[in-house]
Amino acid sequence: MSEASALNNHLFDADTAVTAAADGVFCASISDRWHGLGGPLGGYLIAICLRALAEVAPAPHPIVLSAFFLRPGEVGAAEVRTELVRAGRRTSTGQASLIQDDRERVRILATFTDLNRWSSGRTAVLGRPPNLPDPERCVDPLADLPSGPATIAQRVALRTAEPPGWSRGKPSGQPAGEFWIRLTDDRACDLTALALLLDAVPLAVLELGELGSTTLELTVHLRGLPADGWLLARNQTRHLIGGVHEEDVEIWDSRGALVAESRQLAILASAR
Amino acid sequence: MSEASALNNHLFDADTAVTAAADGVFCASISDRWHGLGGPLGGYLIAICLRALAEVAPAPHPIVLSAFFLRPGEVGAAEVRTELVRAGRRTSTGQASLIQDDRERVRILATFTDLNRWSSGRTAVLGRPPNLPDPERCVDPLADLPSGPATIAQRVALRTAEPPGWSRGKPSGQPAGEFWIRLTDDRACDLTALALLLDAVPLAVLELGELGSTTLELTVHLRGLPADGWLLARNQTRHLIGGVHEEDVEIWDSRGALVAESRQLAILASAR
Repeated sequence: MSEASALNNHLFDADTAVTAAADGVFCASISDRWHGLGGPLGGYLIAICLRALAEVAPAPHPIVLSAFFLRPGEVGAAEVRTELVRAGRRTSTGQASLIQDDRERVRILATFTDLNRWSSGRTAVLGRPPNLPDPERCVDPLADLPSGPATIAQRVALRTAEPPGWSRGKPSGQPAGEFWIRLTDDRACDLTALALLLDAVPLAVLELGELGSTTLELTVHLRGLPADGWLLARNQTRHLIGGVHEEDVEIWDSRGALVAESRQLAILASAR
Repeated sequence: MSEASALNNHLFDADTAVTAAADGVFCASISDRWHGLGGPLGGYLIAICLRALAEVAPAPHPIVLSAFFLRPGEVGAAEVRTELVRAGRRTSTGQASLIQDDRERVRILATFTDLNRWSSGRTAVLGRPPNLPDPERCVDPLADLPSGPATIAQRVALRTAEPPGWSRGKPSGQPAGEFWIRLTDDRACDLTALALLLDAVPLAVLELGELGSTTLELTVHLRGLPADGWLLARNQTRHLIGGVHEEDVEIWDSRGALVAESRQLAILASAR
């Protein structure tokens, strides 16, 4: 089986595919299979942009990206316009704009490198992975909730030690949580899929009784290729001020390695 | 005294000034007065970009920005090319590229709003400000060090409860610290100055015996206008992996309000 047809067995790869249309310009199609409550998940749009940038970046691994969400994405055709901003010896930076109906929806900047080049550098990790019972002894936090428009629940599996307060109508008041997380179709998780998973973790502010937020900007650090299997995620909001909050997410792999961190700035739906 | 001449009494304002050159294009001059050990501080270049974006953004307050450092800045003339990416009712996003000798040094995206519009939103703060003795009872952590090329030490005052390990040649092994911080010339600290101060906090990895890092990307959240006087800063690195690390900084004001957060991804100088 060719690599292309193997890839196409996985929805994630099919739904983030891009095809070259002109110099640095790619066509994509936004599916309805990666919706959060408010339409296509931001992390899904980021994954499409990363697929386009991978075609123009001279290095294989995105290690840091920043996405500004300008307007909601919509199901249907999209164009991704890329620019190779700088091609360097160690790192290269590109920009991608996802456009639908002549309106820019998301703009990202991302820096690429070859992570294998850094494997010999110094390591000192003070953080620790989330400590959860094995996934088989955990529960699906979404099991008792109507899925509604959030098709992402069919694509990304979550497990928690106990049903979270927000899933039982009793928010805990503590805006933090720990989750097992993985794609449901057993596709190996690469850096592009990690960027989506970071944004598929339920918002920490659900535990404050809030129903959702609009993300202004999301920064993603991709620190290493994850080992196979379930991943461990942790989220936290520490500063909600005047309806505006940060949300931090970490993802650790099954070997206990931190593989991704994200931070977003968002506005509560209730503050609009 | 006009507002312009009052502003020009302060070096920060003079050294970040921009003048319109063409539609959306501004001239600036990079001074040698805001150098870190490796030349112009990234936060200084960001401040110049924010001054240019303030001329084109329809709202007064930057609340989130992401800066990608492409090449070092140099003392001398610079051009800042801006683009108003989206002008919205609540928020507007702009992009700025700082260019010298036809080479782009820094590219930033920033979202602006009117912070007064959010003052009625919900607030829940779990973090706490650093707990330090009054600045008058603290020490200057740089007092016993040769300033060398780092002119920033003349522009930004720091105080710590005790001399940090790195300042005594005995790194503590704990990559975290707490500091009083302010501009030395008593200029009121606005959001643009806050963006610079975030980057003027000594790197947490100094406490690991490292001498410095190259920043790939810096994300800044500006959460509120600070009260007058000394500010409190906290830095931390939790994950140094293969020579690559994040660094988080918070700044709180004298009323105990969080006013800014930043996170950068950087590569240790020793890993190059």
